[in-house]
Amino acid sequence: MNLDKVIEVSILFDFYKELLTEKQREVINFYYNEDYSLGEISENLNVSRQGIYDTLKRAEKILQDYEKKLQLVKKFNERNKYIEDIYKELVNIKKEIKSGKDCTILVPKIENLEEICRELLG
Amino acid sequence: MNLDKVIEVSILFDFYKELLTEKQREVINFYYNEDYSLGEISENLNVSRQGIYDTLKRAEKILQDYEKKLQLVKKFNERNKYIEDIYKELVNIKKEIKSGKDCTILVPKIENLEEICRELLG
Repeated sequence: MNLDKVIEVSILFDFYKELLTEKQREVINFYYNEDYSLGEISENLNVSRQGIYDTLKRAEKILQDYEKKLQLVKKFNERNKYIEDIYKELVNIKKEIKSGKDCTILVPKIENLEEICRELLG
Repeated sequence: MNLDKVIEVSILFDFYKELLTEKQREVINFYYNEDYSLGEISENLNVSRQGIYDTLKRAEKILQDYEKKLQLVKKFNERNKYIEDIYKELVNIKKEIKSGKDCTILVPKIENLEEICRELLG
């Protein structure tokens, strides 16, 4: 199984699973989170292998279509990059304070973080 | 028109409009963003007032149903509260630096902000 595909579907599933049917959720969960084969899921759920395959492909398509429209994963990742930037800069600022330098040099850095927060708040 | 309702639907519309049909988007936009009356929309689109009313109610219900399932607005607001907290604390920290106090007292405050960032990053 292609690892990028596994990661892609698992993330989409996290965001959009509530929009799938119970059956679609079950198949995606078995296949992508529990690493069952199509044959194993087929035995488990007493549905033909082809039936499981069709449910899986249909569910993947639904998840991808919702992401195309809502772009939740994309937006979430973009916002997280800003929060990572804030985090890294806080770690730097803490280091500089501990090094005992004149703290007034930190003011522009803090103002930069304030600006990132304002952008995130829109 | 009830202001809370206007705000609620406008926010839901921002998040989920891509999941509505073109017609539903048009009616919601006229009614909630452009402040047209049902009668005015009816004339504009050459559809009966009852037809516009039905489209509006159906579109509102779709938006509310998606929010019940995905809770985007709720989660977005929760995350924004954390970012507001970070912002306010940065403003405080800047003030304290400018006041010329010993900056080492700021270390626990910065560590608290780091913790909030880690939680946001999950």
